[in-house]
Amino acid sequence: MSTEHEARTPVESHTPFAQTDTELLEAAFALHQGGKLETRPTVPLNDAGDLSLAYTPGVALVCSAIARQPHLVYDYTWKSSTVAVITDGTAVLGLGDIGPYAALPVMEGKAVLLKQFADIDAVPIALDSTDVTELVDTAARLAPSFGGIFLEDVSAPRCFEIESRLQERLDIPVFHDDQHGTAIVTLAALRNAAKLTGRSLGELRAVISGAGAAGVAITRILVEAGIGDVAVADRRGVLHLGRDDLTPVKQELAATTNKAGRTGSLEQALIGADVFIGVSAGTVPEAAVAGMNKDCFVFAMANPTPEVHPDIAHKYARVVATGRSDYPNQINNVLAFPGVFAGALQVRATRITENMKLAAARALAAVVEDELSEQRIVPSPFDERVVPAIADAVAGAARADGVARR
Amino acid sequence: MSTEHEARTPVESHTPFAQTDTELLEAAFALHQGGKLETRPTVPLNDAGDLSLAYTPGVALVCSAIARQPHLVYDYTWKSSTVAVITDGTAVLGLGDIGPYAALPVMEGKAVLLKQFADIDAVPIALDSTDVTELVDTAARLAPSFGGIFLEDVSAPRCFEIESRLQERLDIPVFHDDQHGTAIVTLAALRNAAKLTGRSLGELRAVISGAGAAGVAITRILVEAGIGDVAVADRRGVLHLGRDDLTPVKQELAATTNKAGRTGSLEQALIGADVFIGVSAGTVPEAAVAGMNKDCFVFAMANPTPEVHPDIAHKYARVVATGRSDYPNQINNVLAFPGVFAGALQVRATRITENMKLAAARALAAVVEDELSEQRIVPSPFDERVVPAIADAVAGAARADGVARR
Repeated sequence: MSTEHEARTPVESHTPFAQTDTELLEAAFALHQGGKLETRPTVPLNDAGDLSLAYTPGVALVCSAIARQPHLVYDYTWKSSTVAVITDGTAVLGLGDIGPYAALPVMEGKAVLLKQFADIDAVPIALDSTDVTELVDTAARLAPSFGGIFLEDVSAPRCFEIESRLQERLDIPVFHDDQHGTAIVTLAALRNAAKLTGRSLGELRAVISGAGAAGVAITRILVEAGIGDVAVADRRGVLHLGRDDLTPVKQELAATTNKAGRTGSLEQALIGADVFIGVSAGTVPEAAVAGMNKDCFVFAMANPTPEVHPDIAHKYARVVATGRSDYPNQINNVLAFPGVFAGALQVRATRITENMKLAAARALAAVVEDELSEQRIVPSPFDERVVPAIADAVAGAARADGVARR
Repeated sequence: MSTEHEARTPVESHTPFAQTDTELLEAAFALHQGGKLETRPTVPLNDAGDLSLAYTPGVALVCSAIARQPHLVYDYTWKSSTVAVITDGTAVLGLGDIGPYAALPVMEGKAVLLKQFADIDAVPIALDSTDVTELVDTAARLAPSFGGIFLEDVSAPRCFEIESRLQERLDIPVFHDDQHGTAIVTLAALRNAAKLTGRSLGELRAVISGAGAAGVAITRILVEAGIGDVAVADRRGVLHLGRDDLTPVKQELAATTNKAGRTGSLEQALIGADVFIGVSAGTVPEAAVAGMNKDCFVFAMANPTPEVHPDIAHKYARVVATGRSDYPNQINNVLAFPGVFAGALQVRATRITENMKLAAARALAAVVEDELSEQRIVPSPFDERVVPAIADAVAGAARADGVARR
């Protein structure tokens, strides 16, 4: 192994689930033995005749055609159905910077989910570099082989620059799931919670705890979607232009949010708020939740320990959502990314625009809009209506935005 | 598509098979529709319970374990069965520098052959760079995700530097198939031809036409294996130390070959030679073949047009081999590379040593040593004895050389 990543120690305080949970432990290690993914030929290779088509001499005819007309690579290779799931291992789940080797099981997990839910052929790639320029250059050089690039578990604020620089260079979609997957599902959940309680997004004031990849992307999409007001809090409190400790991205958020000009703590911002969105590793005291508005929503998405325990949240909130599969209203990226890439690949999109993300959120919300209840503001990941609905909406928005190749 | 590779034109003179061969043309394009490869989950993903093991929270336990003990990546991801099939598209088949898009079908072909013949999960990766340092850096950064790196269709002499620099940096095997796959199969074929005619390698004088990737590697392995003498000819004639137009690699060959000190043309060198090995795109006149020794061997491996037509060669040679599947004695890399990587991955080798290549050639030759005839000096690619025989030999040599992790 490269010495750089010898025996990194994960942030123990974030290690989900006590090691005493031996049943999960044993089942997880047994399932992961040998990995979770394989490749398979889709053509016969049983005799010399098959070889002469799939390999020489037949393959040379296909190569020559693509050399003359590069766009044919989409028709005669797996590029059109394939994405690279790329990480540098710097922000893996709640475990932090554990390096590329330890990040691989998560990339394999994303790859199998893309195949299972959207029939996308995804390749897990954990890169042995943490330098922004090296990561951009490396991913850009890989691009000819893939129809899209799925960035995963890259630490903030590096992830914002990596995604934007990479998309500038490439003519295939670049999508950082920790940002946009979370943002799309959160917006869908919020739309349905508002609909359930007879309100519009414009009437809601939201408070977001966490200004990392997810917090930034959720904030941006809520503003685009027309949220009434939103305040974002990092560890030092609410973002506002009076603070001198903000990164460029946080300065941008401070300028586009917090119309009310709040300057205090997360708890202070929550007084009278309609929505709490937690994408931090922190906790929120019950008193702060108690001070929120009537019929408020609490989306406590920290994993595995929500910022507010659902049982506490239910004492004050009309709608409660978490990131966990063992509570109702699981806000999970898997509801978004398979359909988003299915739609983008379907039309051979050159990028994923803001309208494509907004369309994905609208389509996801619409899947259950006639079945809404406090326990059901988002569908189950296994609801077979989800991927086709999102894919159609994303493909349509790509065509409308002129980023579709077909 | 990246403009750098817009509509490159293959070297038309090398385009195999006339476009009039419409039957092959249509069959090849039909087979390649949508590509030749897919990914597949090897674990169930049917309900929330499956998700909790393959993805969060279960996967986090596996990630944490690998973070503490990086070698566990071999046990709990697909790294242990996976190779990256990497090209820059600079020397694709006989088509030349046609770029990464046009090279992809060949990489997919290698990937499906690795799966079909050796159950190896291979990923086609065509890189959008032709700079040696960029290629080395890029492949090195990909390495954590793979158990080996398979270099393919990279032009000489760049391929020699790329392979050696990459192997120096990595603790997984790096194998340039155009060099070593061809060399291993050629040595195996020569061993069996010698055995068939009651001679030892030390008694044979060989002439090699072509000093590219294949010619250089074949020359090196024949010298290691104890060939009597070998002369290598490039377009300007036989390599000798008196020439002032030699690359460093050709200078090395000139110093280690041509004991007889020949200085003339390929045709002159062939007078009285026992073996002709063609890995060029050129042709050899019948008169030159006629001047070779009694019971000589002609391995005319240029594809699709052998340097000497087999029917001509048979008038003078005891054993004739080509690279084509429609003649006996096909010297095809597919006889070597699946078993070589199967053996290397089996013991988690850190590199592929010269002894591992020699062992592979010995094992490949041994598969048919009791069935030898002028028409049968190598097995068929579909002979099921080939891969296990080579894999065992390669694994054993890896252990003997101390490059096996287990």
